[in-house]
Amino acid sequence: MARGDRLRVIDPLGEQVADFIAFAREDLNEWLSSGRTLDYNNTIYLTTGHVLYSNRSNPLVTITGDTVGRHDFLYTPCSPETFSILYKTTGHHPSCFENLTTSLRPFGIEPDRIPTTFNIFMNVEVSPTGVLSVLPPLSKAGDYIEMRAEVDLVVGLTACAAEMSNNYRFKPIEFELGRPVPSDFRHS
Amino acid sequence: MARGDRLRVIDPLGEQVADFIAFAREDLNEWLSSGRTLDYNNTIYLTTGHVLYSNRSNPLVTITGDTVGRHDFLYTPCSPETFSILYKTTGHHPSCFENLTTSLRPFGIEPDRIPTTFNIFMNVEVSPTGVLSVLPPLSKAGDYIEMRAEVDLVVGLTACAAEMSNNYRFKPIEFELGRPVPSDFRHS
Repeated sequence: MARGDRLRVIDPLGEQVADFIAFAREDLNEWLSSGRTLDYNNTIYLTTGHVLYSNRSNPLVTITGDTVGRHDFLYTPCSPETFSILYKTTGHHPSCFENLTTSLRPFGIEPDRIPTTFNIFMNVEVSPTGVLSVLPPLSKAGDYIEMRAEVDLVVGLTACAAEMSNNYRFKPIEFELGRPVPSDFRHS
Repeated sequence: MARGDRLRVIDPLGEQVADFIAFAREDLNEWLSSGRTLDYNNTIYLTTGHVLYSNRSNPLVTITGDTVGRHDFLYTPCSPETFSILYKTTGHHPSCFENLTTSLRPFGIEPDRIPTTFNIFMNVEVSPTGVLSVLPPLSKAGDYIEMRAEVDLVVGLTACAAEMSNNYRFKPIEFELGRPVPSDFRHS
């Protein structure tokens, strides 16, 4: 994504999670930080108007539209170990981590650099005693979130492969990338 | 910390936060991950018996004792930007991030590698609408948490420099490092 681009992530059928991560293209050592983002927004539920920050406290993306209002920024992308440790799965299971690392490696981002992802449409609730529950996503068919890049970015996006996060049915995720019309064209 | 070592972090006067971070000594690309830890423990409040995991889903430390039961693993260490963005502070302000990066750099850990820290004694509550509140720590004079290293580690520990997190008074943090008695000695 170039600075100013807008990424719309769409859930065409409903109840499907998508994991999103971003790195500053100019220096891949600058990455999307859940901790800085929670710090500066003072909420675990991010929606329209909220800014997602880097580890260096710079704005990476701004949420410019959101028809759902429930996304998670606490959990890491599901990985092979998620399935073996939490779900006692044996053998290969597709995972967000595998999808992200396979796609981001050609851009010079090694697996160890993947931090906590922004888990679009993922519905996590925190009880008063701190217990976390993964509930079915609140997204209905056609719901979307839209984010504007505040700097040039390398981004990763994957439909989520964890059963519980997606109400036990795997559906596609769609996206549209919008580039602002250059002012030369707009005024001609 | 060598594998098996126990680190006791003590709040000698009460209401003082300490930020803790850990890296696997064998490969510094393996780091303490808040996201993996929340994933596998299913709670935002970690206490005795909980295991803190790395980005590779390996246990790094186990909490072996805790007289408080309220610590935070959502927020990043306070940094110069925390004070300028959130508190509009001008000029230099001491910060956990500066303390950690200054101390960890000689071990080969660059500032960009500092992830979300385990914020010992920090009292963060999440409202049902997701809003985060930083409340005075619940720790009283002499309270402690104790953690056992599950692998050889490089760890960073700092008393916290953010006003609100420490009920607006800065106090010392103490620690004790205990090494298991080698079995050769124990049985002689």
